[in-house]
Amino acid sequence: MRRIRNLARGSTCLGCSRKCRSLLGQAALVSPATTLLAVSLLGASLAPSRVVASAPEGTPPLGFFARSAAAQSAAEKVFLGTPTATQMRRWLMQLTEEPHVAGTPQEKKVAEYVRDRFESFGLETEMVRYEVFLNHPESVSLSLITPREEPLALMEDFLPEDKDSSADGMFPAFHGYGASGEAEGQVVYANYGTAADFERLEGMGISVAGRIALVRYGQVFRGLKVREAEKRGAIGVVIYSDPADDGYMRGDVYPDGPMRPPSAIQRGSVQYLSIQPGDPSTPGWPAREGAKRLTRDEMKTVPQIPSLPIAYREAEKILREMGGENVPDGWQGGLPFAYHVGPGGAAVRMSVTMDEGQKEIWNVFARIPGTGDPAHEIILGNHRDAWNHGAVDPNSGTAAMLETARAMAKAVEAGWQPERSIVFASWDAEEYGLVGSVEWGEDRAEHLQAHAIAYLNLDSAVTGGNLGVGGVPSLRDLTREVAAAVPDPVRGGMVGDDWERRLHQAWASQAPVDLDRKEAFELQLGALGSGSDYTVFLDHLGVASLSFGFGGPYGVYHSMYDNFRWVERFGDPQFVYHVAAARFYGLLAMRLAAADVLPLRIAPYASALSAELDNLRRDAIRKSRMPRGAAEAAPFVLDARPVIAALSAFGDAARAADARAEAIVEAEDGAAAAAINESLRTLEQAFLASDGLPDRPWFKHLLYAPGTTTGYAPWPFPELREAFESSDAEAFAIGVERVVAVLEQATRQLRAAAAR
Amino acid sequence: MRRIRNLARGSTCLGCSRKCRSLLGQAALVSPATTLLAVSLLGASLAPSRVVASAPEGTPPLGFFARSAAAQSAAEKVFLGTPTATQMRRWLMQLTEEPHVAGTPQEKKVAEYVRDRFESFGLETEMVRYEVFLNHPESVSLSLITPREEPLALMEDFLPEDKDSSADGMFPAFHGYGASGEAEGQVVYANYGTAADFERLEGMGISVAGRIALVRYGQVFRGLKVREAEKRGAIGVVIYSDPADDGYMRGDVYPDGPMRPPSAIQRGSVQYLSIQPGDPSTPGWPAREGAKRLTRDEMKTVPQIPSLPIAYREAEKILREMGGENVPDGWQGGLPFAYHVGPGGAAVRMSVTMDEGQKEIWNVFARIPGTGDPAHEIILGNHRDAWNHGAVDPNSGTAAMLETARAMAKAVEAGWQPERSIVFASWDAEEYGLVGSVEWGEDRAEHLQAHAIAYLNLDSAVTGGNLGVGGVPSLRDLTREVAAAVPDPVRGGMVGDDWERRLHQAWASQAPVDLDRKEAFELQLGALGSGSDYTVFLDHLGVASLSFGFGGPYGVYHSMYDNFRWVERFGDPQFVYHVAAARFYGLLAMRLAAADVLPLRIAPYASALSAELDNLRRDAIRKSRMPRGAAEAAPFVLDARPVIAALSAFGDAARAADARAEAIVEAEDGAAAAAINESLRTLEQAFLASDGLPDRPWFKHLLYAPGTTTGYAPWPFPELREAFESSDAEAFAIGVERVVAVLEQATRQLRAAAAR
Repeated sequence: MRRIRNLARGSTCLGCSRKCRSLLGQAALVSPATTLLAVSLLGASLAPSRVVASAPEGTPPLGFFARSAAAQSAAEKVFLGTPTATQMRRWLMQLTEEPHVAGTPQEKKVAEYVRDRFESFGLETEMVRYEVFLNHPESVSLSLITPREEPLALMEDFLPEDKDSSADGMFPAFHGYGASGEAEGQVVYANYGTAADFERLEGMGISVAGRIALVRYGQVFRGLKVREAEKRGAIGVVIYSDPADDGYMRGDVYPDGPMRPPSAIQRGSVQYLSIQPGDPSTPGWPAREGAKRLTRDEMKTVPQIPSLPIAYREAEKILREMGGENVPDGWQGGLPFAYHVGPGGAAVRMSVTMDEGQKEIWNVFARIPGTGDPAHEIILGNHRDAWNHGAVDPNSGTAAMLETARAMAKAVEAGWQPERSIVFASWDAEEYGLVGSVEWGEDRAEHLQAHAIAYLNLDSAVTGGNLGVGGVPSLRDLTREVAAAVPDPVRGGMVGDDWERRLHQAWASQAPVDLDRKEAFELQLGALGSGSDYTVFLDHLGVASLSFGFGGPYGVYHSMYDNFRWVERFGDPQFVYHVAAARFYGLLAMRLAAADVLPLRIAPYASALSAELDNLRRDAIRKSRMPRGAAEAAPFVLDARPVIAALSAFGDAARAADARAEAIVEAEDGAAAAAINESLRTLEQAFLASDGLPDRPWFKHLLYAPGTTTGYAPWPFPELREAFESSDAEAFAIGVERVVAVLEQATRQLRAAAAR
Repeated sequence: MRRIRNLARGSTCLGCSRKCRSLLGQAALVSPATTLLAVSLLGASLAPSRVVASAPEGTPPLGFFARSAAAQSAAEKVFLGTPTATQMRRWLMQLTEEPHVAGTPQEKKVAEYVRDRFESFGLETEMVRYEVFLNHPESVSLSLITPREEPLALMEDFLPEDKDSSADGMFPAFHGYGASGEAEGQVVYANYGTAADFERLEGMGISVAGRIALVRYGQVFRGLKVREAEKRGAIGVVIYSDPADDGYMRGDVYPDGPMRPPSAIQRGSVQYLSIQPGDPSTPGWPAREGAKRLTRDEMKTVPQIPSLPIAYREAEKILREMGGENVPDGWQGGLPFAYHVGPGGAAVRMSVTMDEGQKEIWNVFARIPGTGDPAHEIILGNHRDAWNHGAVDPNSGTAAMLETARAMAKAVEAGWQPERSIVFASWDAEEYGLVGSVEWGEDRAEHLQAHAIAYLNLDSAVTGGNLGVGGVPSLRDLTREVAAAVPDPVRGGMVGDDWERRLHQAWASQAPVDLDRKEAFELQLGALGSGSDYTVFLDHLGVASLSFGFGGPYGVYHSMYDNFRWVERFGDPQFVYHVAAARFYGLLAMRLAAADVLPLRIAPYASALSAELDNLRRDAIRKSRMPRGAAEAAPFVLDARPVIAALSAFGDAARAADARAEAIVEAEDGAAAAAINESLRTLEQAFLASDGLPDRPWFKHLLYAPGTTTGYAPWPFPELREAFESSDAEAFAIGVERVVAVLEQATRQLRAAAAR
C-alpha cells in the first residue's frame, strides 16, 4: 500500500521511504522542522564513518576482504548485466492482467504465477498459507440527501483509451477493514482528519458527534482519520482525494497526465496501523490453522463506524452545499469555491455491507542458500496483493523482484557462492495491514531474531526516476556505495549522484541554521515509519531494515488507473528505472550476503539520532516560546540531557566498533569477522524493549516507530515524541530512562565488539 | 495604494505595515527567514529599554515630566472621548460617493470636501497644487485570439445589491503609468512575475521575448512585474488576480464574503517604485510650476510596453488554453485545472491608448500650531485619491484622520497646549506613485529635515480588527504605550493586547531556533518597505516614520467593490475599528507633540537591526550550504563582522542615551530636554548617505529601503541585501563600510547626547 507522493511535480520529489514521502509532500507545508525530522537529512557533528561514495576504483566493497573482492566483482558483473527492460515490461504486464485483491482467487493466481517464475529461475520455492480476517464489499452506496437527493458514484469512469479502466473484476469503492453499517446525517468537513484538525473544529465549537465527517486524504494514514472521527462520536466517515493534494493542482490528470482525475478513488485500509498491524483477529500471534481468533467486536484495531472513499468530482457535490463558517487557514483544498466547515447545508446517507471473515492468503518464498553460513538470511520482501491491477503499487516492485531473482540466479549459475542465504518473499494482504508479512514475522520470530541479517523492502518500486531510500542508519554506508554503483538510465552517471544531490539541496534549503554552529551536510537515509512490510522486521523483531523506490508524479494511487497503461505512459515508459530498481535491490543483498565483515556501520546511527534529538529539542523550544494565558500551566520543559550524554557515549563506541570492523577487513581476519558480525547483526535488537511502547506493546523498538497519530510518518524516539506532543513530563522522564537504557545496552555491545 | 492582505482568513492577519502584509501573506509560504525579516519580530539580545505596556496607572507617559502629566491626561481624555462610529460612518459615506482618481474633477471635489471639514473643526488649512505627469485610459481592449476570437472583460459586473458597483464614473481596467501601445502574441505564464520567476522560465528554456507575459498579482509590487518582463523583451504584460491569492481560496467572495469575486480587477500603478517614487517627469525635484519636465521617453521609472490588469474569470479563458509544460512547483494557482507555462495554445491581442500628460493634483493641509516650539512638526498623512470609490483604500484612513483632527481640535478647545505643531496632510496621487507626498517632501526637504519630528502614516486604515504597525524601531516604545491605551472595541481590553499576542505567537512559531542560544520574544514594529506615503519622509529625508492599520480578510483591493457597502458588510460593520484607528493615530501624535523629552527610544533600534542582520547571516549560511557543481564559483562568503561590532557599539550608546533621556525626565530638566530632543530628532538623518543607494540615489537611508525587486517589502540593510542577492562580494564589502560609517555616526551622536 506504499504511497509515492508527488511532492513537487517534475523532479524534486525526495522519494525515499513511505513516511518520508508522506511527510515531505504534506507536512513540509506545515513545519520545516517536522520535514527534516522525517527525512533525517540534518547535518550532525559526527563525520561519516567512511567516505564510501568516493571509494577509488578497485577498492573492495564495504566489508569485503581484498581476497574476496574479485569473485564478488565477477558475480556482480553477471548480476548487473542480466535485467532487461523488455523482461521487466513483460513481468509487469503479466502480473497486472487483472485486479488481485487479497483473499480473491485472482490474487492466488498471481501468487502461483510468482512461484512459477521463481521456480523457472531454478530457485527453491515455498507457498505459505494463512487464514486471516479480511473484508470485501458486498454492497456500498452513498447519496447526497440534502439539499437534494443524488447518488454519488463509487466507481471510476471508463476511459476508452485504457482497457484496464473498466469495472470488470474491480470492487467498488470500499475500505479494507472498514465496518459495515448505515449512517445518515449532516456533514462536517474536518480537513485531513488529524487529531489536530478535530481539535481545531472543537475550538470552533463544532462537533462531529452524531454527524458524518468528510475528510480529505493526506498527511496521515487513512485509518487514523476514521479512528479520530470515531473517538469523537462521528457516525460515519467519507474520505475523498482533494485536487490540491494529488489532482489537477499538482499537474495534468490521467489520461493526459500522471495525476488524479476527477473520478478516481483512493481505496485502502482503515486499520489502526500505528497501534498494531497484521491480522486483527490474531493480534500478536501467528494466524496458523487452529490459532485463537478474536471476533470482530473484540478487535481493537479496526473501526466500528462505516467509512467510504470517494473521488473529488463526487466530494464537490457535497462540499459546494455545505454551510457554516469558512474553513480555517490551511484547510482550503483545490475545488473552485471557498470551503465551509458545516454542519448544515449538506447531509448524506451511506450504507456499507461487507462480506467479512476468515479468508486465505499466500506468501510466496524463494531461496538462494548460503554456502558458508546458510542459516543466516538476507530477506528481500515485496507485497503482491493490490486494490486494483496494482501496476505501481505493488507490482512495479514485484516485477523488479522477479528480475532481481532471475539475475541473482544467473550469478549463482556463473559461480557466485554467497556466504549467507538470500530469501525472496512475495507477501499477500499487505494492503489490509501488512498482514502477510506480520503473520509470517510473528510465526518465525525466534528464527528471525536468531538469524536474520537484514530485511530489504520494495513496495511501489517505480513512479519516476528519483531514488528515495529509508532505512536504519547502519545501512547508510552500504546504501551509498550501492547507489554509486547502479547506472542512472536517464541522467547518466549513477543513481546515487542525483539522490545525494537532491538530499543535499533539501538539507541546504530546509535544515535549521544555528548562527553559532558550523554544520555540514551529512547524508542520512530517511527514517522508517510504517505503511509497508518492513514494519514487523524493524519495529517488532529488531532486524535492520531498508525500503526504497524511484519516485515521480503519481496521482492514481489505489485507484483503477494504477495500471499498466499508466506506467507505460507516465511512470517509466522505457522500464529503465525498473531495471535500476532491480540492480539496486540485488546489489544491496549480494553485498550483505557475501561480505566478510557485515556492511553495517554504526557511526551514522549516532549522528542520525543526534540530529533527530535536535529536532525534538527545537520543537520543544518552539513550544515553550508560545505566549500563555495567566491560567495556563507552566511550559513543558524538556530535559533531554541524559539522552544527549548516552548518545555521546554511543557515538564513541560506534566509531570504535566501525574502526575495529575496518581493521578486521584490513587484516582479512576471518575468525574476528565472525565475532564482530554477530555483534553488528544483533545491534538493532539492543534497541528493543520487551514491553514495547506505551499503549502499543507490539511496537518494541524504542528509537523508531510510526507516529501514533501519523501512521505512515516516523517518530524517532517515539516515546519521547509522544510525551512531548501530549505535554506529559512524567511520561517524558520515563521515556528518557528507557531510551538511555537501550542506548547504554547498545553501547556496551559495541564496546565489547571493538575490544574483541 | 496600501494593500492589506488576507493572510489567514479570520483573525490571524498580522496586519502592520504594507510590506509586512505583503511579505507575511505571501513570502511566508516561501521562507520563514524572509517572513521574519519582514516583521522584525526576532528576539534579540538586548532587553526592551522600558517595559511600557505594563506601566502602572498614573505613571506619566513616555517622555513626560511628572508636572506635565495631568494636563496631558486631561487633554487625552477629551481627545479619546470625541470620535464616534456614527460620525465615522458619515465621513466615509461622503468621501466615497464617487470614484475619485487623481487628476480628475471628482478628486478635486473630495479635496475641497476634506479642506472644508478641517476648516469646520477650526483648523488652519491650505491646499497645495502641483502639476504632475499622470495618465487616464482613453481606450483599452484585450482579446483572446487563439484558439478563438473572444474579447475579455475590462470592467467588473454590476451587482444589484451594491449601488456602487456600476461603471458610472469608473475607468475601465488600466495601469497607472502604464504605456500606450498595441501588442499581439503568444502568451507565457510567469507566475508572480518576479525576477526569480523569469529566471526559472529561462532555466526551462522559455523566453518571453516577443511574447505577452501573463502574471498573477502578489509577492512584489506590480510595476516590478512589468519591469522584469520588459527587461526580457516581452511586448506586453497582463496581470490577473488569482483566486489562490485573494479570491475563493481565501474565503467567500463578494457580495457573499470579503474576498475577490470572479470579475473583480486590481487596478494600480506600474511605476518602478523601488527605483524612485513621485512624479516621473520631475524625478528628485518638486513639480512646481515652471519646473523642468522630462518627456515620457526620458522617464526612467515607467514602462515602455503596454500592460493591463484583469479578473480571474477572464484569465481563466487564457490559462485553460495554454500549451507547454505543467508549471513548476509553487506556480499553480487556484483555478480548477493544471496550469501550463506556454507558449502555444493561447494568444492575445491588447490595445491601450492613454490620455497622459500634465494634470493637477491637490495636497490638503491642516495645522494645529505648537505653543512652545511651533516650528517643529509632527506630520500625520493619509492619501485621498483612489482607483475607485476608495472605501478602504484610502478613505477608511481619511475618515479616521478627519475624526482624529476633529477630536484633537476639541482637546485644544478644552485647553490642550502642545509644545510642537501638528500637521494633517491629505495627499493626492499616491496611487500613481506616492506623487503628492513625494513632490511636497522634495519641495520642503530643507524645512522638514530641520524641523520634522516624525511622520505618521495612515493609508487603508481598516479592513478588520487586527492592529498592524510598521515603523522605525525608535518609535516602538511609544507605539506599545499607545496601543495599551486604546480600547479594543470587540475583544475588550486594549488593542495592544491582541497585537502583542499575535506578534508573540508569530515569533514563537516562525523565528529560527538556535539550540545554543536562549532567545526571548522582543516585540518590534514591522520594518517599512514602500507602497505608501511614508517613503519620502523615511527613505529620502530621514524622518522617523510609522504606518499602521487594522487588518482583516480583504479581497476587493483596487477593484470596483472597494466601496462603502463592502466596509459596512465586512470591513468594519460597526465602524468601531475606525474609531480605534483615530484614537491610536491621534494619541501617537499628541504624545510626540507634547512630551517634554521626545518619546523616541533607541535601544530597540539596536536590537531590531541585530535581528535583521542575523536573518541576513542565516540566509547567507543557507546559500553557502547549497551543493555546487565543479564548474561553479566558490560560495559567496559574507563577512558581517564589522557590522556586528558597529551594532554592538551602537547598542551601548543607545542604552546610554535612553538612560540619559529617562534621567532628564526624572529630573524634570527642561534645558537638558531641549538638548537631547534635537539629538533624538535627528538620529534618523544620521543613517542617510548623501549619494544614496547603488543605482537608486533618491533612496538615502542605508538601513531600510524597499527591496529593489520587491517594491513593497522592505530590505533592511538594503545595500548588503542587494549585494548578497547578486553574490557580489565587492559590493558587499563596500556596503559594509558604508553601513558601519552611518552606524558610527549615529553612535557618536548618541554618545554626545548621553554625555551632555
